[in-house]
Amino acid sequence: MSGKNKRGMLIILSGPSGSGKDTILTQLAKRDIGVQLSVSLTTRAPREWEIDGFHYYFVSKQTFMEKIHNDEVLEYAKYGENFYGTPSAPVDRWLDEGKTVILKIEVQGAEKIRARYPDVVSLFLMPPSMEVLEQRLRNRESDSEEDIVRRMTIAREEIARSEEYDYIVVNDVVDYAVSDICAIIQAERLRSTRMKYKVSEVLDHA
Amino acid sequence: MSGKNKRGMLIILSGPSGSGKDTILTQLAKRDIGVQLSVSLTTRAPREWEIDGFHYYFVSKQTFMEKIHNDEVLEYAKYGENFYGTPSAPVDRWLDEGKTVILKIEVQGAEKIRARYPDVVSLFLMPPSMEVLEQRLRNRESDSEEDIVRRMTIAREEIARSEEYDYIVVNDVVDYAVSDICAIIQAERLRSTRMKYKVSEVLDHA
Repeated sequence: MSGKNKRGMLIILSGPSGSGKDTILTQLAKRDIGVQLSVSLTTRAPREWEIDGFHYYFVSKQTFMEKIHNDEVLEYAKYGENFYGTPSAPVDRWLDEGKTVILKIEVQGAEKIRARYPDVVSLFLMPPSMEVLEQRLRNRESDSEEDIVRRMTIAREEIARSEEYDYIVVNDVVDYAVSDICAIIQAERLRSTRMKYKVSEVLDHA
Repeated sequence: MSGKNKRGMLIILSGPSGSGKDTILTQLAKRDIGVQLSVSLTTRAPREWEIDGFHYYFVSKQTFMEKIHNDEVLEYAKYGENFYGTPSAPVDRWLDEGKTVILKIEVQGAEKIRARYPDVVSLFLMPPSMEVLEQRLRNRESDSEEDIVRRMTIAREEIARSEEYDYIVVNDVVDYAVSDICAIIQAERLRSTRMKYKVSEVLDHA
């Protein structure tokens, strides 16, 4: 099968803080399904278990601003006191190479990605209930009570906007959510708009 | 998880004669993925291995016309000398019951289904090449040389229209094609338009 005319596929994953985006992405990265995880820039402090260059690129506010100035950031948003952004160069290179690229981005940033990549596939990761979400945030033990209350308020606003996304994946059991995302990736690769090369191949060699 | 507000999902499967629709549907029916296969009416003669009520309802031309007259046929088309149609009552009942219903229909009929059910999910089953398609038609040993030539011409016209479908599944290895269709069904159930009930559930119980 010729892959020459196949452009890559861009996927965005959003979801409230505590919905389990990092857990899901870690599991996806372990599977052999040919996806490339993009790593975001952030100015927030790393949590104890977070690895620089894997979970995020942790940078100073000054470095972040310089990158924006140099047009090296695809989208960015301020969330609380911290900035989050997506470095642009790797994404465009991977898409040119035909890869499936997954971006983890905030709901605010998703809009900007959609505007720039109209054929993006957008996934919203949803907690099974608000009670479970709150429990997960409390189990983290890294956030203050004020932080938790603030995150729950923001979560409600974000969930109310989940219908702006193409797909909604409930993260109750991690394995099921990962399986759902794998199915979405497999299905989206078969979209007729992405299979034009195959139609030409069959008809032109007839 | 409440299923009260979940309406069923309608899927149509089209593809040229010899693309393997029946083989694929037989395999899908064996899997425990909660799909309901619709059975079409046809006036054509059954092939030796075909079972009335499973592969088709084989009816006379007179019976077929009476059913059209009584508005019991969702769509129908003439294909060669024969009529093919979809009985309407079971489809609407299954959708009301929240089931996933798969219809095997001709390319001509697909248009009519799309007009009546705008949220239908449409799949086009494509042979890996025209050479393989011709070989499959010849292996059947039930068609005359004229039939094969005619079917190949129609197949080219149908494949040229495959981009009218949501998804294109290449049927090279049957198990892979079945896996692709299962992934599409799993993914489509997670479309945000079909997950509104879940968003309400999470937000309303908060």
